[in-house]
Amino acid sequence: MFSKTRREDPKDETALNAKLLIRAGFVSKEMAGVYSFLPLGLKTLNKLNNLIRQELENLPAQEIEMTGLQNPDIWKKTDRWDNLSVWFKTELSDNGVVGFGWTHEEAITMMMKNHIHSYRDLPRAVYQIQTKYRNEERAKNGLLRGREFLMKDLYSFHATEDDLNKFYESVASAYEAIFSKLNLDTLVYRTRASGGAFSQFSDEFQLLSEAGEDIIHIHQAGQYVFNNEIFKPEVLSSFNLDKQDFRSSKAIEIGNIFKLGTRFSSPLELLYLDEKGQKQEVVMGSYGLGPSRLLGAIAEVLSDNRGLVWPESISPFQLHLLAFDDKGKKSEVLTKAKKFYHQLTDQGIEVLFDDRSLGAGEKMQDADLIGLPWRLVISEKTLSLGGGELKNRQTKEAEILPFNEITNRFKA
Amino acid sequence: MFSKTRREDPKDETALNAKLLIRAGFVSKEMAGVYSFLPLGLKTLNKLNNLIRQELENLPAQEIEMTGLQNPDIWKKTDRWDNLSVWFKTELSDNGVVGFGWTHEEAITMMMKNHIHSYRDLPRAVYQIQTKYRNEERAKNGLLRGREFLMKDLYSFHATEDDLNKFYESVASAYEAIFSKLNLDTLVYRTRASGGAFSQFSDEFQLLSEAGEDIIHIHQAGQYVFNNEIFKPEVLSSFNLDKQDFRSSKAIEIGNIFKLGTRFSSPLELLYLDEKGQKQEVVMGSYGLGPSRLLGAIAEVLSDNRGLVWPESISPFQLHLLAFDDKGKKSEVLTKAKKFYHQLTDQGIEVLFDDRSLGAGEKMQDADLIGLPWRLVISEKTLSLGGGELKNRQTKEAEILPFNEITNRFKA
Repeated sequence: MFSKTRREDPKDETALNAKLLIRAGFVSKEMAGVYSFLPLGLKTLNKLNNLIRQELENLPAQEIEMTGLQNPDIWKKTDRWDNLSVWFKTELSDNGVVGFGWTHEEAITMMMKNHIHSYRDLPRAVYQIQTKYRNEERAKNGLLRGREFLMKDLYSFHATEDDLNKFYESVASAYEAIFSKLNLDTLVYRTRASGGAFSQFSDEFQLLSEAGEDIIHIHQAGQYVFNNEIFKPEVLSSFNLDKQDFRSSKAIEIGNIFKLGTRFSSPLELLYLDEKGQKQEVVMGSYGLGPSRLLGAIAEVLSDNRGLVWPESISPFQLHLLAFDDKGKKSEVLTKAKKFYHQLTDQGIEVLFDDRSLGAGEKMQDADLIGLPWRLVISEKTLSLGGGELKNRQTKEAEILPFNEITNRFKA
Repeated sequence: MFSKTRREDPKDETALNAKLLIRAGFVSKEMAGVYSFLPLGLKTLNKLNNLIRQELENLPAQEIEMTGLQNPDIWKKTDRWDNLSVWFKTELSDNGVVGFGWTHEEAITMMMKNHIHSYRDLPRAVYQIQTKYRNEERAKNGLLRGREFLMKDLYSFHATEDDLNKFYESVASAYEAIFSKLNLDTLVYRTRASGGAFSQFSDEFQLLSEAGEDIIHIHQAGQYVFNNEIFKPEVLSSFNLDKQDFRSSKAIEIGNIFKLGTRFSSPLELLYLDEKGQKQEVVMGSYGLGPSRLLGAIAEVLSDNRGLVWPESISPFQLHLLAFDDKGKKSEVLTKAKKFYHQLTDQGIEVLFDDRSLGAGEKMQDADLIGLPWRLVISEKTLSLGGGELKNRQTKEAEILPFNEITNRFKA
């Protein structure tokens, strides 16, 4: 692992998530709202992406990858080219202006014109996990608001509104399964948001956090949660609810699901032939989830004053093995630790091995900062007690265990 | 699989690779030099990327992921911001002009300043497989010349020139192993190219193809191959070679390796402390390989007049299973094919199952177009002969085999 940890916070960051992820060697800052992923960060991100993929493949949905560069012509047809400040635009050397995609409804609608012709081609669901660009003015919240960020965007195509409604709920369930595997389920609220022309409401998935830029309003009975935009007298009265029965909280929007209806299929003419041979407009939905923002959100809400605390489901390694060899002098400890490291990895267990010539204090500080779920210390003392000390990063509970027991615990 | 094949060539493409990949449903064109990947294309690309990763991890090298958005300040220090036409530049909403990366020497050199301090931190090698942007004027060659393309870029950092030279050769060997696994080894020439200030030559890996935009010159004895740029009297005479002993050929540049020396570490001040405590400039190398261009190149050189022919190492599926059920009437055939499909996939064999209600001719045309290495036909006739007909896409050899033998042949 070439990346080094840092003791000091980076001077140009105010956001906790960026401070922790930079200090622990997960990301590197290129400019405000633009972060590169170092090996630890990329491993974590890839695990998160694969966890998301698993749930989406079950829907089922098929993975594709669209492009950053966007043709303005199709965005003009939906009236989203000229009026929006979110675009990064640039000039082709030979032929006019193009944009960099911040979402892909237009592109996917055009693409599907080649692949949906008949009711027999419906329903369809496709997704991508792809880098998006957004010309944000306030990019001061680390990975929570990126000018360049990774997005999982899923699009669905249906013959009927009923079919869309069913699929929409299955995506909501998939999201809830994802948040549960990330240990975030008790902190995430499915929140009503404005729905556009086709549907009264859309849904956001909001994670309670003081670092959030959104405010959500939670009814005391728990059933109704509204985002700030629609927390208005007319909406409340339509549900027969009283403003006083709500508590408000800052939150991070980590996902959203949206019934698009024919908002895009109509202007871009994505049509299908129904069973009677009549042309109909395809009914669509779109579903967003931001993996890079999710990493930042997890760093915000699951960390403690010592550093990051990763959920086991996406931790870059299962186990952090520290050999306390007193700066190389106690070579027996290092030899035994190395041997056990190879035993563990031979079993397919993912181990980050700290074999650096550093003192025990520095190694423990780094292990807490990096935040793998389990830390295993091998020292003269633990060897004399017959094994290694296994400590849980979250609960801080520790016990000495024989090596074979440790291996058995982590084997798949 | 939502993607549909096409019988007709797309009207706006002249390049064979784009015609085939679009017709077979691997990619979708967004604009000239900008292609989205459909499920078949993305699966193939991911397999190619993983094949590349395996060879690079053995070097060893560690994977990271840098950003598209680039800070001009660092590129001004190396004099590569103002003078180059390859940039896509854009304006931040609040703070000046930024660019989209077409290579990452500057960014990786800056990043490594946080992770290389001493001779003990060397050597290091890091790579990424990441989307690059290049403002190409002539983007008329399908995936061979992209305005947006996937790049594997590897960078190495050394204390000495000797160490760089050794690593440089190990990357050349890794590339040769990759090309061999792609069945391209007999067509690829390691080609001398201009080397820049630090080294007399760099090396390109050039794939013989009439679709190539480069010309290479191959000495009759085979030992010397030069690119067109350095095929000059003074270079030839330095090797004591005669121009008449060379044959020339068009070729696609699919990789290059370059000794950078201190070209970037010097202006960007990437320094290390040597064993005597003296500051030294880090010696660097950079190594490119384009996965999306490679897919296009494979489509050019390994296809035939019926369609694509994928090497087994990166084929999106191992086997294309066609059930000839005479448009749904012979349901026994479809039932047996489905059952065998599940037997195969339960064994971890990757099968693309064509269970569409189409005639045998159309299914065979599509199978040839898509180009999986093995096609398995199940029909009334093959069942009466005790199994299915297995046909090799490349050699066109076919034989009837019992189902259990087919399973055994493809099991890992």
